[in-house]
Amino acid sequence: MAQSEGNGQQRHRNAPAAPAQQGRRNPPARPATAGAAAPWQEQLARAVQDGDGAAAGRLAGELHPADLAEFVLSQEPALRARLLGWLPPEQAALVVEELPAPVQSEILAVLDRQRAGAVLEEMSSDEVADLLGELPPQRAVDLLRLLRDREAADVRSLLAYLDDTAGGLMTTEFVALQDDLTAAEAIDALRRLAPDAETIYYVYVVDREERLQGVLSLRELIVAPPDTPIRRIMRTRVVTVPPDMDQEEVARVVAKYDLLAVPVVDAEGRILGIVTVDDVVDVLEEEASEDIYRLTATPEGAAAGTSWLRARLRLPWLVGLLLGELVVAKVIQGFEGTLERVAELAYFIPLLAATAGNVGTQSLATAVRGLATGEIERGEALGVLGRELQVGLLLALVLALTSTGLVYAVLGNGAVAVTVGTAMGLNTLVAAAIGVVVPLALHGLRVDPAVASGPFVTTTLDVVGTLVYFLTATWLLFRVAG
Amino acid sequence: MAQSEGNGQQRHRNAPAAPAQQGRRNPPARPATAGAAAPWQEQLARAVQDGDGAAAGRLAGELHPADLAEFVLSQEPALRARLLGWLPPEQAALVVEELPAPVQSEILAVLDRQRAGAVLEEMSSDEVADLLGELPPQRAVDLLRLLRDREAADVRSLLAYLDDTAGGLMTTEFVALQDDLTAAEAIDALRRLAPDAETIYYVYVVDREERLQGVLSLRELIVAPPDTPIRRIMRTRVVTVPPDMDQEEVARVVAKYDLLAVPVVDAEGRILGIVTVDDVVDVLEEEASEDIYRLTATPEGAAAGTSWLRARLRLPWLVGLLLGELVVAKVIQGFEGTLERVAELAYFIPLLAATAGNVGTQSLATAVRGLATGEIERGEALGVLGRELQVGLLLALVLALTSTGLVYAVLGNGAVAVTVGTAMGLNTLVAAAIGVVVPLALHGLRVDPAVASGPFVTTTLDVVGTLVYFLTATWLLFRVAG
Repeated sequence: MAQSEGNGQQRHRNAPAAPAQQGRRNPPARPATAGAAAPWQEQLARAVQDGDGAAAGRLAGELHPADLAEFVLSQEPALRARLLGWLPPEQAALVVEELPAPVQSEILAVLDRQRAGAVLEEMSSDEVADLLGELPPQRAVDLLRLLRDREAADVRSLLAYLDDTAGGLMTTEFVALQDDLTAAEAIDALRRLAPDAETIYYVYVVDREERLQGVLSLRELIVAPPDTPIRRIMRTRVVTVPPDMDQEEVARVVAKYDLLAVPVVDAEGRILGIVTVDDVVDVLEEEASEDIYRLTATPEGAAAGTSWLRARLRLPWLVGLLLGELVVAKVIQGFEGTLERVAELAYFIPLLAATAGNVGTQSLATAVRGLATGEIERGEALGVLGRELQVGLLLALVLALTSTGLVYAVLGNGAVAVTVGTAMGLNTLVAAAIGVVVPLALHGLRVDPAVASGPFVTTTLDVVGTLVYFLTATWLLFRVAG
Repeated sequence: MAQSEGNGQQRHRNAPAAPAQQGRRNPPARPATAGAAAPWQEQLARAVQDGDGAAAGRLAGELHPADLAEFVLSQEPALRARLLGWLPPEQAALVVEELPAPVQSEILAVLDRQRAGAVLEEMSSDEVADLLGELPPQRAVDLLRLLRDREAADVRSLLAYLDDTAGGLMTTEFVALQDDLTAAEAIDALRRLAPDAETIYYVYVVDREERLQGVLSLRELIVAPPDTPIRRIMRTRVVTVPPDMDQEEVARVVAKYDLLAVPVVDAEGRILGIVTVDDVVDVLEEEASEDIYRLTATPEGAAAGTSWLRARLRLPWLVGLLLGELVVAKVIQGFEGTLERVAELAYFIPLLAATAGNVGTQSLATAVRGLATGEIERGEALGVLGRELQVGLLLALVLALTSTGLVYAVLGNGAVAVTVGTAMGLNTLVAAAIGVVVPLALHGLRVDPAVASGPFVTTTLDVVGTLVYFLTATWLLFRVAG
């Protein structure tokens, strides 16, 4: 267990240096997030522009890495690496960890090799692995050579895990102690082990084969009589996750049990790393954005970059959907005879399409969110579908009657009113079914159910719904009514 | 500062009793979330049904409160209170804290008065305040009388804050120490103060007027020479939030600075409580669900309850939107002359409506998510609108040309193709503008921007877009072409 020996390099990523290294001088009031142009930003920007490294370093020393990262992002790309070149490697590492991946690699490409190595050395192993995964292989191998052997080995082992699994999310910086230590020896070990760790989330206890035996809080260590073996005071039932668990599921475990960190263990029960709650918070935000963007067919990059880039990202989706609607146009054209004889049918095309779309989107949102929060568990698919069809049937009945009544009131044409009402009932039922079947099926195939975006479901419903409408009309108005 | 004296009742809500009190007996592997019908659930259900309190208590003693709460929810309402009546009040309190508000009040209504009081006494003050806020006033006053004076005072002060603010989210159970203590005295105080607290998130340091002076980690206390005054080792710059800050903003502060807890302070700098990261995780999940449901006009309760209840919740939205589409029908009817002369116009009504809807929904999603994650800050509204209009203009140009070409290819009618293309360009621009103006305006008015749900925006766009389409057609086909 690399982490259980004192090498002076243990460090918890994002550990609460936080509550203190804040960009404000006055006593506690509001966080630095509020003001858009606080004086320090202007001063620091001037120092960076003037090339005044001493002044910039002094100003930066007072700031929280999260605020510094925000500042770095607000600068021209050419100036970003300049500021980071002036900071001590430990501080630069904390700032780099807060930056988005493309900016990280941009900066590491510009920094000179020695400096880049020093910054990487100070970063936590999971961040280094994520970053190297983004770089061209040649550059990644080159940078990996700059790391000390143990750190490089940690990073290499992390590179083996998929990004969005527990293994990809975990850090190898945690504290694990042998189970035969006494409470006093354990406290001494912590003093030696974690000189940079501000918060020790939990103290893990392992046996000689490095298998996880239990967990301790720092408080329990302090309260225990000094010569008690920690084996006697640790808690032995521990919530753990396997390295291949999906990050969304890991987030749900941490949220459910209100943990500050969860250990990742292999099949033999050996602890490989821990996933900390701050990473879980990031995962939840990321997955929520992802769900919303996918549900609305909005590409993820569409919120940043030049207007042309944003438009270019959005266009393929829009043009694809437009082609779907062209199919709808062909369907209507196929019924031109019907439409010629009863022109009023055209008035209610949008009404039918929109209502089916709304029903389908509601079903979709309910299913996607239920899957995301774990309210719908694997294996419950049939029950969920059955319930949604019941709901769909009730909606279909009410909407069919309502629209028949409304169309009759507006148009005074009973035959068209019954046609619209009948099509409305059928379409509503189809919409409820498609809205819930698609995400459940994707989930069953282990594909993120949110890829079944709302617009794709509604476009499909437009095609099906228009067909149902004109078939109903042709049948009711001509075959039945004569 | 109530919290700084040792009364044997300090407790951190949801504190990591978690990593250990888990419902599994075997050594660490997977968390208990996986299996749907692990044997303990069946055994416990049988014990509850048979009225075997001893067996139920023994089984429950091995379980995590989160798992027990899940079990309670799976039981018939009549049996829920029975199990909780058998548990020791401390354990019952932890389970009740994990239950949704309606079930909490249902159970407290059934438990006898003494027992209800004992459970409330053990719950954290913010949970009690939330719960009492949900009960009928008479019952709330009655239960409040059962609490010890200090606990009751804490609860009453919390009742004054709005649910979705920092004040409504905070707990009054935190550790604050006077700044003139030494490190050794502080550790002694912690031993006395927090007998039930498993994790001390941070140790806050206050002056004689209870104003927040700084913050310490437990580790810093242990490492410091025993006779150092904590004033000398604490960090003095602390991220804090005011009690009236919106919970979404509090979550963003905690996420940005990777905090485990953030202190809530009043205008004089006195610490009122702390918001812990586990509550922030809940807020993030809640707000993401809320955004998704509102964006899709899905009422929040629509994922639970009987089919009839679900349908009834969804219907008002659907019927409201249907009325909007009836306006679209009237618009088309108003142009019946145009439609009679060029029947092909009807084919492209869904194409135009759907594309405008898709563009509007993309703009809406980008704006709503940007506001939710803080990427769009207050005061940037004009810049965001300007950028979105640029994007809209580019989309309008490309979509106008594409649809002109496609319609011509499908129909071979140049005049209709140009009409559709022109209307497409105009509608796309309007859609991009409405999709971003509505949420920004609502945000400016301090209304949650997600209430501008996608379906309402698309229905509005259907009305506007259809009008634009037929006006364009009437003008281009008859006035211009003759």
